[in-house]
Amino acid sequence: MTRVLLASRNAKKLAELRRILAAERVAGIEIVGLDDVPSFPDAPETGATFEENALAKARDAAAATGLPSIADDSGLAIDALNGMPGVLSARWSGKHGDDQANLDLVLAQLTDVPDERRGAAFVCAAALVHPTGPESVHRGEWRGTLVRAMRGDHGFGYDPIFVPEGDTRTSAELAPAEKDTLSHRGRALSLLLPHLSDLSG
Amino acid sequence: MTRVLLASRNAKKLAELRRILAAERVAGIEIVGLDDVPSFPDAPETGATFEENALAKARDAAAATGLPSIADDSGLAIDALNGMPGVLSARWSGKHGDDQANLDLVLAQLTDVPDERRGAAFVCAAALVHPTGPESVHRGEWRGTLVRAMRGDHGFGYDPIFVPEGDTRTSAELAPAEKDTLSHRGRALSLLLPHLSDLSG
Repeated sequence: MTRVLLASRNAKKLAELRRILAAERVAGIEIVGLDDVPSFPDAPETGATFEENALAKARDAAAATGLPSIADDSGLAIDALNGMPGVLSARWSGKHGDDQANLDLVLAQLTDVPDERRGAAFVCAAALVHPTGPESVHRGEWRGTLVRAMRGDHGFGYDPIFVPEGDTRTSAELAPAEKDTLSHRGRALSLLLPHLSDLSG
Repeated sequence: MTRVLLASRNAKKLAELRRILAAERVAGIEIVGLDDVPSFPDAPETGATFEENALAKARDAAAATGLPSIADDSGLAIDALNGMPGVLSARWSGKHGDDQANLDLVLAQLTDVPDERRGAAFVCAAALVHPTGPESVHRGEWRGTLVRAMRGDHGFGYDPIFVPEGDTRTSAELAPAEKDTLSHRGRALSLLLPHLSDLSG
């Protein structure tokens, strides 16, 4: 059994990552969390891209623990904000991790943006870094539009205002398993999985 | 004497526009403000570019008053925010025209952005629209970097955190006349002036 570290301190994101990986049941791999390893300091997320941040987090975790490590960086790229909040999605209001403040700010900023220019994409970069060197990073995107009021109780972050293409529900109104099959995070992890299987070989 | 309307309701911007135009002393032109003409409703600023918004404001003013009209749209394009707040500069925090809230939000969003990625440009589009049809729009840019704390009492908007290229002072620490010779607004208006002279011919 090869132990692989899932390096996230965001409880809701961690639950989603674990659920997606559990559904895929990669043989010979045991997923462990940060609670299962000695603690190490967080690196600052100062990269200009999701890929840089995901790789930096996975590299730090692999170096600190000696375990192959998975990390993601993700966010919402809003067309009318030139792709922002992007890598700043979790701290858009200035307070890191305050979902409600971030949602309120985005809705206020988009007040005067007409319906035809309210497109956006959820983006996830998922990195897998082995302590002896091999690494890869994979990008998943999920296109949709942003509504003017929050709907739904599932998910986290900007889910309550994001309506995926081809649907009328927000991603916070999708059942978790349904979200996983469609989402940016699900897509990025499905691209990462073959590399995970390699580890157990 | 040809009367030309300066169509801005932002008192500090209006003062800057008037000062720049007064310094240029275009012969045969009298600049009037919105207080000097019958009131008309403001058009919403929903354009995706500075140019669209400047033209829309000048067109509305010219149509409502029958006077050749000048309007500007301007803002701060921050590299690390993919060019935002851009056209949303005056309402970035969600409250239109709250300079302090907008400054506080930008500083908070850029907290983790390192010094080498803190470049930005002030951008101004200045439009001149004649009621019988001829129109032009001119763009001025002013490059600089963003500091981490406000300095200076002049200017308005994001001036207290913007250090122009080649200087160590913020644009809020420049004397008004010095700012005008360098600024995005000064540059855009200097491109517009020849078209203004045409009106008096």
